[in-house]
Amino acid sequence: MRALWLENQRLSLRDVPKPATPSGEALVRVLLAGVCNTDLELTHGYYPFAGIPGHEFVGEYDGRRVVGEINAACHACDACRHGRSTHCKNRTVLGIKSRNGAFAEYLALPEENLHPIPDEIATEEAVFIEPLAAALEIQEQISISPDDRVLIVGHGKLGRLIAQTLALTGCKVTIAERGTAVPEKQFDIVMECSGNPAGFEAARRAVRPRGTIVMKSTYAGNLTVNASSLVVDEITLIGSRCGPFDKAIDLLANRKIDVRGLVDATYPLNQAITAFGHAQRSGAMKVLVKCRP
Amino acid sequence: MRALWLENQRLSLRDVPKPATPSGEALVRVLLAGVCNTDLELTHGYYPFAGIPGHEFVGEYDGRRVVGEINAACHACDACRHGRSTHCKNRTVLGIKSRNGAFAEYLALPEENLHPIPDEIATEEAVFIEPLAAALEIQEQISISPDDRVLIVGHGKLGRLIAQTLALTGCKVTIAERGTAVPEKQFDIVMECSGNPAGFEAARRAVRPRGTIVMKSTYAGNLTVNASSLVVDEITLIGSRCGPFDKAIDLLANRKIDVRGLVDATYPLNQAITAFGHAQRSGAMKVLVKCRP
Repeated sequence: MRALWLENQRLSLRDVPKPATPSGEALVRVLLAGVCNTDLELTHGYYPFAGIPGHEFVGEYDGRRVVGEINAACHACDACRHGRSTHCKNRTVLGIKSRNGAFAEYLALPEENLHPIPDEIATEEAVFIEPLAAALEIQEQISISPDDRVLIVGHGKLGRLIAQTLALTGCKVTIAERGTAVPEKQFDIVMECSGNPAGFEAARRAVRPRGTIVMKSTYAGNLTVNASSLVVDEITLIGSRCGPFDKAIDLLANRKIDVRGLVDATYPLNQAITAFGHAQRSGAMKVLVKCRP
Repeated sequence: MRALWLENQRLSLRDVPKPATPSGEALVRVLLAGVCNTDLELTHGYYPFAGIPGHEFVGEYDGRRVVGEINAACHACDACRHGRSTHCKNRTVLGIKSRNGAFAEYLALPEENLHPIPDEIATEEAVFIEPLAAALEIQEQISISPDDRVLIVGHGKLGRLIAQTLALTGCKVTIAERGTAVPEKQFDIVMECSGNPAGFEAARRAVRPRGTIVMKSTYAGNLTVNASSLVVDEITLIGSRCGPFDKAIDLLANRKIDVRGLVDATYPLNQAITAFGHAQRSGAMKVLVKCRP
């Protein structure tokens, strides 16, 4: 099958065998896949993954359209036994860790990871279920009330999805546009979605004492943090990753979230490298790759 | 009056005027003061304070023994109006920021900051009320249940006070002794009380995915943090500082906490520089300074 291949931070198009499907796994025919910032970070060496990237997808399995949770868990380790299977110690992660991903004609995932998509959700919308679930993870971790003043730093595709999920809580959402001044220490909660140290610094300046910074982006390098100032201001930093697919599906099916305006472009699979280049552009929104010829 | 003076990270003993007491402030005669790690960090340049250090004290005011909360608030700023007066934007802090401290014959604090000490609490115990309140701040910020596996990194005087306050919750407390191996990713909550980057690294290794690291110590320098790993493991970092004096007083009065074993030595005020030297020693517990001749 045709696939995008990442190795030593270089992308190429290859013909590779269809994925094997051990017991319990499904061979999914990929319809559409989205380029995520984590994919871009992988090409910058965020994690030494070699293989097919891509973890946001819509596919076909057993005659139905499906999306899939990206962490394949062992169900035996401490994290799994405590109900935290997305943190399974032995997990493989679609297109990120020890498992080939979605920029290909086919992918394999445990059947239990798949969610059928209701007819109300178009395929071009369903490809946003994975990042929308990640946006919703924030509200699984912290409660947000209508009184909260919330700032979003990093106004990319994830930031905009988060803005829409926050709007549902009734809180006051401010978006930090690049180059505009943000009031200092005024925000109860800051969502750091920029994935760069300057964005973290902006978040740190904006959050009030005893406020919370939600870290939503992976970073290719280390961050230097003034730890004493976190202690003195009693700041909470909270890392946030994959979230609840069922809630994301419900919101899209009930038209509470509008993702159609977030697509910049769609490329065929054999132009996937061009798609990555497009997604790298400053200000680019979601770039999709059509994997079915 | 006689006082210990800190300037350009150097300590000296001086004769200085008694503190002025603006309206609402009390002139407190200091009986006993404790050397805290923050005092030691000040001598290493953690914050550019010049003046009399010291913020853990027992004094006499209006014929009674008193302890005092260390943040003097403006009651007008955003933080004060939201009930977070320890985070007052315009605050002065006893012996730390724009206000002379306790290693002297007298200190000044707003009367509202003072708490009388019940007769059940000896002066040598009462000097622990401020750090005990700081230990109790953790439980104001996060809930700790009997099921929680809690690790304390940094087994100094603050770490031991925290261990005693945690024991009251029924949780399983482990103390990371220097040089012993700590199991990786096994702890629900880790208290980082070491104040050094190696201690933070140990805490990071020990905490489980979706676990919490409470940062209880100030650091003289910056920390380098693998931010992506915090995101991937969905770790919560929470800075923690000053806490509830009333609860600390109750626990000591009711003999729930035993601080007597935590005192290493007591020096007279004119040997306060020696007292700081003693407190710097590896493994030193609480060093006290008797300020009343």
